[in-house]
Amino acid sequence: MKEFKDYLNDARLKINNCLEEVLSAIPKNELLPPILHAVEGGKRVRGFMVLEGAKIHGLEDKSPHYAAVAIELLHAYSLVHDDLPCMDNDPLRRGKPTIHVKWDEMTAVLTGDALLTLAFQVLANQNYILDPSIKSQLIYDLTVCSGLQGMVHGQFLDMVWDNSKTSANTDDVATIQSLKTGAIIGWSCKAGAILAGADPQPLERYAENLGIAYQISDDLLDVRGETDVTGKNVGKDAGLGKPTYVSKLGEIEAQRQAEQYVANAISSLDSYGQKAEYLRELARYSINRNK
Amino acid sequence: MKEFKDYLNDARLKINNCLEEVLSAIPKNELLPPILHAVEGGKRVRGFMVLEGAKIHGLEDKSPHYAAVAIELLHAYSLVHDDLPCMDNDPLRRGKPTIHVKWDEMTAVLTGDALLTLAFQVLANQNYILDPSIKSQLIYDLTVCSGLQGMVHGQFLDMVWDNSKTSANTDDVATIQSLKTGAIIGWSCKAGAILAGADPQPLERYAENLGIAYQISDDLLDVRGETDVTGKNVGKDAGLGKPTYVSKLGEIEAQRQAEQYVANAISSLDSYGQKAEYLRELARYSINRNK
Repeated sequence: MKEFKDYLNDARLKINNCLEEVLSAIPKNELLPPILHAVEGGKRVRGFMVLEGAKIHGLEDKSPHYAAVAIELLHAYSLVHDDLPCMDNDPLRRGKPTIHVKWDEMTAVLTGDALLTLAFQVLANQNYILDPSIKSQLIYDLTVCSGLQGMVHGQFLDMVWDNSKTSANTDDVATIQSLKTGAIIGWSCKAGAILAGADPQPLERYAENLGIAYQISDDLLDVRGETDVTGKNVGKDAGLGKPTYVSKLGEIEAQRQAEQYVANAISSLDSYGQKAEYLRELARYSINRNK
Repeated sequence: MKEFKDYLNDARLKINNCLEEVLSAIPKNELLPPILHAVEGGKRVRGFMVLEGAKIHGLEDKSPHYAAVAIELLHAYSLVHDDLPCMDNDPLRRGKPTIHVKWDEMTAVLTGDALLTLAFQVLANQNYILDPSIKSQLIYDLTVCSGLQGMVHGQFLDMVWDNSKTSANTDDVATIQSLKTGAIIGWSCKAGAILAGADPQPLERYAENLGIAYQISDDLLDVRGETDVTGKNVGKDAGLGKPTYVSKLGEIEAQRQAEQYVANAISSLDSYGQKAEYLRELARYSINRNK
C-alpha cells in the first residue's frame, strides 16, 4: 500500500489536472487571473474525499474528478468571500496575498461569485456527469450544504458571534462548525456514493465525525502552528476572541476529543473493509498535520 | 384581452406567491430578513418572461412559476452585490435602503451568496421541476448566463471601465449590456421553451433585441426619470461618467434605436401568432415605462 502522503499527492495531481481542463475550456476572461490565484495551492482535501468515496464504490469513470473540481471551486469561493475586509479581513491565504489585497474588493466579490457559479456549472455540464438525475441530486445537495441552510449560514453566525463578542458555548461552536465546514465535508464524502447510486449513510457518519476532528485540529493549529507552514496568519482566531473548540475546552481536552472523533470516523467505515483504508488514513492525518 | 398592466400585475402576484411558498419552506434563519428585503418590491419582469414563454408553449403545470422564482432570486443577488460600497456604492434600491445600509456589508455579501445559491436550489429541487434533463439544462444555461461568461463578467467590465474612465464606444456599451443584463433576459425568455422541450430560438432573438431596448430605456430613465418614481438614484450613471447608450448616442438617437430594437423584438415573435401578444406588449412597455 502506497504511503498516504504520496497517495494524497497523486489525488491532488489528478484534481489539479481536471481543474486545469475545466478552466482552460473557458474563453479568455479578465477574471481568470484572480480565479486561478484563488484556486491555486489548495490542499484538495475535499476533492480527495470525493475521489475516495467514488473509489470505494468501484467507480472508474472521470465523473468523480469533475465533482471534486466542483467542490474545490466552491471551497475557493468561500475562502475569497470569507477573507474580505467586511468579513475576516485576512491579507494572507495559502501563503499568498488574498484577492482583495492583490487586486481589490470589487474583484474579490466578483471572483467569489464567479467561482460559486462555476462550481454548479461543472456539475451541470452534460459532458462531465452524464446521468441527469444524479447530477440534479448532487447540485441540490450542494445548494443545501453551501447556502442558507449550510455554509453561508455558518459564516454569518460565526461573524455575528465574533462581532458581538457574545460568549458562545461548546454546542454553539459545534453548530457553527457543522454549518460552516461540516456540511461541505459531508457533501464531499457522500458525493462518490451518490455518483455510484449507492447508500451514502456510512460516508455521512464518517464525514460528521471527521468534520469535527478537522475543525478542532484547525483550532489547535491556530494556537500551535507557524504562519510560514500553514500559509495563513496564526493566532488570528484567538486574537479576535473567536469562540473555538480550543478556547472552550483547552488544548488538552480539545486534542482528546479530536482523537475520539477520529476513532468514530474510522469505525463508521467498517462495512467498506480494506477499500476504505485511505479514508481511515485521512482521518488519522486530519489531527496529525502541520498545515 | 386584459390590459397589459393588469396582466403583468397578475403575473407578479403569482410569482410573489410562489416566492413566498419557496421562502417559507426554509427553516428559520437569521439571514431571511435581509433576503426578504432584497427580493421585495421587484418588478418581476424576468419572472414574467419565464411565465409568458411557458404559456406560449401551452405549459400548464407550476414548473414555470418555480423557474420564475429562481431567476428573481438570482436577479436579487446581482442587485445586492452590485449595490455594495466596493461596486456601485448605492444606498437606495426599489425605494428602500440597500442591504449594506440597512444591515452591513458582511450581511450584504452573505445575503447575495445565499440568494445565488437558493436560485440553483429552486431549479434543482425535485418537487419543483420534475424532469431531471430539463432541470439540468436550465441550471447549466443559467450558470453560463450569470457567471464568468455572462453577468459577472459584464459587471466586472462595467466596473473597470467605470473606474478607469476609459472612454468606451457604443460597441463596448453593447458588449457590457449584453453580458450584464442581456444574458439573464435571454435565459428568462427561453426558459419556458426549454421547460416545454421546444425550440428556444425565436425567444432568444426576441430577448436579444428586447434586452438592448430595455437597457437603452434604463439609461434614458437615468437621465429623465425621477428618484421617487424609479426607486433608485437618478443621474447616477451620468454623474459617474459611466458609458451608457445615452452618453454615447445622445437622447434622441438612443430613443430612436430603442424603438428599432423593440420593432425587431416584436417581429421575432411572428411564428407564435396571437399567443405572444403579451410579450409584444412587454416590448412596447419596455421603452414606455417610468421606472
